[in-house]
Amino acid sequence: MIDKTQLLADLQLIRNQSPLVHNITNYVVMNNTANALLAIGASPVMAHSVDEVEEMIAIASSLVINIGTLSHDWVTAMIIAGKVAHQKGIPIILDPVGAGATSYRTQTCLLLIEECKPTIIRGNASEITALVKNGSRTKGVDSLASSDSALSSAKLLAKHSGAIVVISGAVDYCTDGEKVVEVHNGSPMMTKVTGLGCTATAIIGAFAAIQKNSLLAAAHAMAVMGIAGELAAAKAKGPGTMQLNFLDELYTLSEAEINKHLKTKN
Amino acid sequence: MIDKTQLLADLQLIRNQSPLVHNITNYVVMNNTANALLAIGASPVMAHSVDEVEEMIAIASSLVINIGTLSHDWVTAMIIAGKVAHQKGIPIILDPVGAGATSYRTQTCLLLIEECKPTIIRGNASEITALVKNGSRTKGVDSLASSDSALSSAKLLAKHSGAIVVISGAVDYCTDGEKVVEVHNGSPMMTKVTGLGCTATAIIGAFAAIQKNSLLAAAHAMAVMGIAGELAAAKAKGPGTMQLNFLDELYTLSEAEINKHLKTKN
Amino acid sequence: MIDKTQLLADLQLIRNQSPLVHNITNYVVMNNTANALLAIGASPVMAHSVDEVEEMIAIASSLVINIGTLSHDWVTAMIIAGKVAHQKGIPIILDPVGAGATSYRTQTCLLLIEECKPTIIRGNASEITALVKNGSRTKGVDSLASSDSALSSAKLLAKHSGAIVVISGAVDYCTDGEKVVEVHNGSPMMTKVTGLGCTATAIIGAFAAIQKNSLLAAAHAMAVMGIAGELAAAKAKGPGTMQLNFLDELYTLSEAEINKHLKTKN
Repeated sequence: MIDKTQLLADLQLIRNQSPLVHNITNYVVMNNTANALLAIGASPVMAHSVDEVEEMIAIASSLVINIGTLSHDWVTAMIIAGKVAHQKGIPIILDPVGAGATSYRTQTCLLLIEECKPTIIRGNASEITALVKNGSRTKGVDSLASSDSALSSAKLLAKHSGAIVVISGAVDYCTDGEKVVEVHNGSPMMTKVTGLGCTATAIIGAFAAIQKNSLLAAAHAMAVMGIAGELAAAKAKGPGTMQLNFLDELYTLSEAEINKHLKTKN
Repeated sequence: MIDKTQLLADLQLIRNQSPLVHNITNYVVMNNTANALLAIGASPVMAHSVDEVEEMIAIASSLVINIGTLSHDWVTAMIIAGKVAHQKGIPIILDPVGAGATSYRTQTCLLLIEECKPTIIRGNASEITALVKNGSRTKGVDSLASSDSALSSAKLLAKHSGAIVVISGAVDYCTDGEKVVEVHNGSPMMTKVTGLGCTATAIIGAFAAIQKNSLLAAAHAMAVMGIAGELAAAKAKGPGTMQLNFLDELYTLSEAEINKHLKTKN
Repeated sequence: MIDKTQLLADLQLIRNQSPLVHNITNYVVMNNTANALLAIGASPVMAHSVDEVEEMIAIASSLVINIGTLSHDWVTAMIIAGKVAHQKGIPIILDPVGAGATSYRTQTCLLLIEECKPTIIRGNASEITALVKNGSRTKGVDSLASSDSALSSAKLLAKHSGAIVVISGAVDYCTDGEKVVEVHNGSPMMTKVTGLGCTATAIIGAFAAIQKNSLLAAAHAMAVMGIAGELAAAKAKGPGTMQLNFLDELYTLSEAEINKHLKTKN
């Protein structure tokens, strides 16, 4: 169960410290995730050139890798930055956008997991399941029965990779392979705005920058996303107003709102 | 003349089936067009690497190619994806952003038309005219007299290319080279938001994914764009609110609104 | 001191002439800066391929170079476009995003200043200071005492580079190395929206396109940014509504609002 006091303390730390979150992310969501990181109180930086990622990650407090519009040079930079982050103990959050849709996406994610040892991986059910199925095919590790749930995939991926795994959806599951924290906040309207999944990953980056317990960092981030999403949807007339309301709610999110709306389970 | 019942049926099909629209488009509008596709009920995917476009287009229902921020590697990917789409009978919608402004843009468009045989081409009057003038210069086909209208250019380009051609403006013209459907909806405020032309092209992609008659698909998309634009402009205080109102209106567009506002001619 | 009549005349010129502003800028802010340029009345174009920048800049009225998400090919294109602009007397505005954060950013900016001779450079205090410190280290020119203010850096950079230098912050300073114009407009909420600094640079591009006195162009642009920002913040509920209000205010900015709110000093 998420402790409200601890969640609030983390949120306050982000707002006070403005940790630098280095993003190597996709073109579609760069603006949104930068704005969401600013709204929560963090400092975003986007940098993807092989000529600077090593230097940039060294001054950052976390690294967000998102493969949404991947291509060769970007993947090279992701691996360089990820390796440096891993060596320096800087938390790495991986968003395997579209894993399973093309083999390039799936294989790139497996390579990033292998080479960079991400701290936290966040995806939807089909992305996480694709990583488990393809990872096990390649490596002969525990494989998934077809009857298994997405949560089983998340647990398996967590065990294989050593990462905290988050599956976001109507219910968000955060797991270290054994323990599971469920977040029951959110709104279906969130699926009508592009990149709110990617934004969740970036917000996890903000929490991981100030919270060493990665399971808590992930769960706190998903709770904040979900509550801000609910509040924004209640005032939205459609996905256009939803997108901007969401940033306003992230920015103004209060103790009273968290206390009133938080719904979690573990 | 657009049949309202048929237009509504198409809109309902998009909302029910959520067709996957593969976009290889420009950096400026990626977020907007992804959001517009979500708002209308489609599923957008952005992927541009030569390492995956062939696999991605194979699972999509239409392909949108937009050259707004073109460069060498992206054009290579556009041609690969376009050829596969053409072979598989997946509709291709081409947006020749800035054709005529530089010879690189004009020549790239002519190459894409030659290699990929787009199903529908949408541009403004000067872009379509530039394609006809430069195409005829190169290939010796029917050329344009200086007194000819933009609509004449559209008809000529449709005949030469085999594509439905749409010229958007105060009045939108959709033509197969003979028949012409005019859409008289829209608002001048739409020109004050970047990328609403590119959004029109993406929305055509959504309609082409579920409507085999490409002239109808194009006309239905332009009608929906125009009506949503009118409704959004009526509530906007400027281009900022216009942009988000437009997404809200696309999302909530109703039978009653279409019946009340649709203005077409043929 | 900014003359209100002259500022209004410049704003009116932009609205009447819609000068074409060629942007080679970063992925994060492309959409915002294109929309801001449209809102102020200019015509934005984004083009970055070495295959077309030479041709594109030749038809533009100003060139905005922003290194926010730089990489090798983009820097090559920036230099090509910048050299052509310089030869043709087209004003060049440079935004040294993140100068000082990595040596790649700092060195690229120094190279762009050397090769393209920008007309105006706009950054925050730390970016401008980084350029002065690193430039002097490399070239042995007048260096900065640690006690010197950011304004001293701006003056030194202006003298070394021949450019008008703008440091934006709570107070914006515009200097040619001797004269200083201060703009006291703006709102702290502007720092919570990504890319409003980049937007300021683009708006300077619009003013430089129609105002040959570069110090005035820069000061007028910063004044318009600041006033629109104040008006937008007064109506905003957070950074989401701030972003769109800002575009609405830029679009509707009136003589009465400028007369009422302008606060400058020199």
